[in-house]
Amino acid sequence: MASARIVDLLSQGQPGQTVVVRGWIRTARQLKEFTFVEVNDGSCLKGIQVVLGQELADYEMLAKQLDTGAAIAVEGQLVASPAKGQRVELQAASVEIVGGADPEQYPLQKKRHSFEFLRTIAHLRPRTNSLGAVMRVRNAAATAIHDFFQERGFLWVHTPIITASDCEGAGELFTVTNLDLDKLGQSQQAPDFEQDFFGKRAYLTVSGQLEAEIMGLGFSNVYTFGPTFRAENSNTSRHLAEFWMVEPETAFCDLGGDMDLAEAFLKFVFQRVSDRCSEDLEFFNQRIDSEVLNRAETILNNDFERVSYTDAIALLEKADRSFDYPVAWGIDLQSEHERYLAEEYFRKPLIVYDYPREIKALYMRLNDDQKTVAAMDVLAPGIGEIIGGSQREERLGVLKQRLAEANLPEENYWWYLDLWRYGSVPHAGFGLGFERLVQFITGMGNIRDVIPFPRTPQNAEF
Amino acid sequence: MASARIVDLLSQGQPGQTVVVRGWIRTARQLKEFTFVEVNDGSCLKGIQVVLGQELADYEMLAKQLDTGAAIAVEGQLVASPAKGQRVELQAASVEIVGGADPEQYPLQKKRHSFEFLRTIAHLRPRTNSLGAVMRVRNAAATAIHDFFQERGFLWVHTPIITASDCEGAGELFTVTNLDLDKLGQSQQAPDFEQDFFGKRAYLTVSGQLEAEIMGLGFSNVYTFGPTFRAENSNTSRHLAEFWMVEPETAFCDLGGDMDLAEAFLKFVFQRVSDRCSEDLEFFNQRIDSEVLNRAETILNNDFERVSYTDAIALLEKADRSFDYPVAWGIDLQSEHERYLAEEYFRKPLIVYDYPREIKALYMRLNDDQKTVAAMDVLAPGIGEIIGGSQREERLGVLKQRLAEANLPEENYWWYLDLWRYGSVPHAGFGLGFERLVQFITGMGNIRDVIPFPRTPQNAEF
Repeated sequence: MASARIVDLLSQGQPGQTVVVRGWIRTARQLKEFTFVEVNDGSCLKGIQVVLGQELADYEMLAKQLDTGAAIAVEGQLVASPAKGQRVELQAASVEIVGGADPEQYPLQKKRHSFEFLRTIAHLRPRTNSLGAVMRVRNAAATAIHDFFQERGFLWVHTPIITASDCEGAGELFTVTNLDLDKLGQSQQAPDFEQDFFGKRAYLTVSGQLEAEIMGLGFSNVYTFGPTFRAENSNTSRHLAEFWMVEPETAFCDLGGDMDLAEAFLKFVFQRVSDRCSEDLEFFNQRIDSEVLNRAETILNNDFERVSYTDAIALLEKADRSFDYPVAWGIDLQSEHERYLAEEYFRKPLIVYDYPREIKALYMRLNDDQKTVAAMDVLAPGIGEIIGGSQREERLGVLKQRLAEANLPEENYWWYLDLWRYGSVPHAGFGLGFERLVQFITGMGNIRDVIPFPRTPQNAEF
Repeated sequence: MASARIVDLLSQGQPGQTVVVRGWIRTARQLKEFTFVEVNDGSCLKGIQVVLGQELADYEMLAKQLDTGAAIAVEGQLVASPAKGQRVELQAASVEIVGGADPEQYPLQKKRHSFEFLRTIAHLRPRTNSLGAVMRVRNAAATAIHDFFQERGFLWVHTPIITASDCEGAGELFTVTNLDLDKLGQSQQAPDFEQDFFGKRAYLTVSGQLEAEIMGLGFSNVYTFGPTFRAENSNTSRHLAEFWMVEPETAFCDLGGDMDLAEAFLKFVFQRVSDRCSEDLEFFNQRIDSEVLNRAETILNNDFERVSYTDAIALLEKADRSFDYPVAWGIDLQSEHERYLAEEYFRKPLIVYDYPREIKALYMRLNDDQKTVAAMDVLAPGIGEIIGGSQREERLGVLKQRLAEANLPEENYWWYLDLWRYGSVPHAGFGLGFERLVQFITGMGNIRDVIPFPRTPQNAEF
C-alpha cells in the first residue's frame, strides 16, 4: 500500500480510514498497556501519533526497537484523537521496523541541540524540527518565486555559473581551473591560462545580471534564480561563499516600475509562505524570533514608503539620536541608518532611491542631475536591505564615458555595449539574496542554518 | 500605458481595442502608402503586424528608421487582419523609435544564419526565431519540472555546487580555488590546500545525488534542479562543461516506483510543453527536425516498455542485423543497441533495468542474484538514454563491503554511511540532464544551442 503523507492525514484524514504511514520516529513513550510513537515524514512539522497496543504481533520485540531516529512503516486505522492539538491518531494494526537507530549512537536524541552542533551533523539535521521547518519554508519561498514571475510572463533563464568576465569590481572571485596545480607549483612559471580548459582564466559568477540583460533585450521579461559565489573571507552570520540569487530584468521599464515589481514580489512570497507554511511560521515565532509573524504582517499590510536618498539623508540628519557613522549626503547608508528609517521612523518597509553615483555601480542609469543614479534599495524592519536594484544605463554614449572615467577598457565589454548599439531600451532589474530572504522570513539568526550545506571559510563538508 | 504582451494580443486581442506594444522590429516592408512592420517582444514566435500609414505625424522620418533590430513602441488600435494566419494587426496611431539598429552594423539581418555563426553572437541570438523558441520551450520544461514534483509533495532542495567530496569515480572535476596561482607558479612547491579558502581541495559538483539522499532521508520526497559540471575535454554536440541536472530522490521506494516516477515525469513535461509551446514545437517540426511532433506523441501515448538487461541482451543477440559493438551479457549498452531497441524493436520508449554490477556505480543496490544491481535507464526513440536511475544500496554491511572491494576508504564516506546507520530505508532516484531533454523535445542537433551561454572546451565567452 502506498504511503499516505502525514501532512494530508493530519489535515484531512478521516477516522475509520485504513492507511500506511512511513517515516522516522521522533519520540516513543511506553505506558503500561501500549506505546505512543510520534512518526514524522518531513511533510510537516508535527508527526502523527501512532498507538501500538499489546495485541500487536511481536509487541514485546517491537517495543524494544522503537528508538528515536528509527525508520518505521505502520499500517492501521485512523481514529479520532483524545489528545489536545491533533484531530486523528493512528491505531497500528501492523508495524515494521524498516531501519533501526542505535540509541547509544544516534546523535539526535530528544533533547534540544545547539545550531552550532547541528551544523557538524548537517547530514542528520534535516530530521530536526527547526531545520525541517526551514527547508519547507525555503521550498515554499523558492516555488513562490517561480510562480510570481511565471504568472507575469517572465522567462526563467539559466545564466552561466562559470564566467570569464570579471564583472564590475566584483571583489573576490573563485577561480575555476583544470590546470594541474601540482605541476604548476613546480613550474617556476606563472600559470598559462591559455592551456586551461576554457582557454582563458575562468571564475565562478558573482551575478547573472549582465547575461539576464542580454536575455531581457530579447524576451522583455526574464529572471534568473541560481547559485552565485563570493570568495570573501567573512566569517559572519550573514555571509556565505555560495548562495542562491534571484535577478529579474525587465525591458521597457524604469525605476518606478522596478520598485513596483520588487514590492509586489516580496508581498507575493510572504503571502505564499504564510498560506503554505503557517505551522512552521508559528514554530519560528514561538521558538526562534517572536517578531516573525509581525514582520510578515508588516510586509503584507503596508504600502512600501518611497523616499529619495536625498530626503532619507535629511531625515537622518534631523533624527533625535546619534549614529556611530556620521550622516552626510554622499555616504553609503549603514545598517544603523537603514534600521532607524525602517524600524523607528517609518515602521514599515521603505524603498530608498536615487543614490549618489559615486557609491553605486557604473551600469546604473545616470540621472539628469548628473549627481545621482537610478538605484533603489528595499529596506525592511528587522533586516535592513533585502533587495537592491536599478534602472540600467542604456545610453551607449553615457556608458562609454563612465567606462572611460573608471579606466575600464571597452573591449572587455564589447558584447554588453552591443546591447545598447542595437535596439537599446530603458530597462531595470533587481537582485535578492535568497538565503537572506529565508532568514528574514524565519528569523533564523545564522545564514548557515537556512541552506542545507553551507559553504564558508574553512568549510565545504558534506 | 503599460505594454500588452504580443502573445496575449494574438490569441485574445479584440478589434477596436487600444493598446501599446513595445518590442523589436523583425522585418519592415515599405509599400507606397504605408509600411508593414513585424514587431516581436519574445513572448511568442510570431510578431504582431503593425501598419504605419502616411497620416502618421513624422511618417517620412519614421519610415527611415524602421530597421530590423530597432526597438519600437507603438500605440494604436487592433483591427481584424486581412492577412492569412493572423487574427489581428495593429493600426499605429503613434510610434516611437526607442533604440535604433544601424542596418550597416546589426549582425542579424533578415536572412537565415547558421547556428555556428549565431553562437559567436550569443548576446544577440535570443532575438532569432530558433533561439527564441528554444528558450521558451526551455522555460516551459523547467517550470513543468517544478510543478510535477511540487504537486507530488517533493521539496526542491539546493544541494551544494562547491564540494570537497570527490564522488564515485566522477571523472573530470574542475578545481575551485582562491589560492594565488601566480605565486603558486613561483613557489616550487605543491599547492597547500589547507591554506585555500575551504581549508581543503574543493571542486565543482558533478551530481547532487548524495546530498539529495541526505535530504530524502528527512523529507521522504525531494529533488534537486541545478547546475552540474564536467571538465571533460569532449568537443561534441552532446557535451557541455556546465549543464543543469534534475535529480529526485524518494524514500521508501524501490526500483519499480522509480520507473513509475520517471515515466510519469517525462510524460508530464512533454504534455506541458505541448500545451504551452505548440507554436514553437510546430516551428521545430517544420524547420529543425520533422520528428519533433511524432516524438512527443510517442512519449505521451505509450506505456513505456520495461525489459530487464538480461532480456534486452537476448533480444539484441537475436536481432537480424549486425552491430559494430558485439553483444554479450556484461557489456555496457552502446548507442546503436539502445536505438535498435527503442526505434526498431519496441518503437517506443523503454526502461532497461537490473544491469550487471560491474558496469554500474557502487551505490546502486545489489540484487539477490549478486550479479546485477537495481539500476534502470530510460531509452527513447531518437535520442537513446534520457534518464538513468537506481534504487540505492541502503544496507550498511553491503555498502561497506563494496567500498572495500573498490579500495575506497570508509572515512571519506562517514556521513554517507551514517545515513544507513540511523533510520536507513529503501530509496531510489534518477538523474536527467536538462539540456539533453531540451534537445530531445526540440530536435536541436547541437547541445550548445539549447542553453543560453554554453561552456565548452576553449569557450566561456559572454
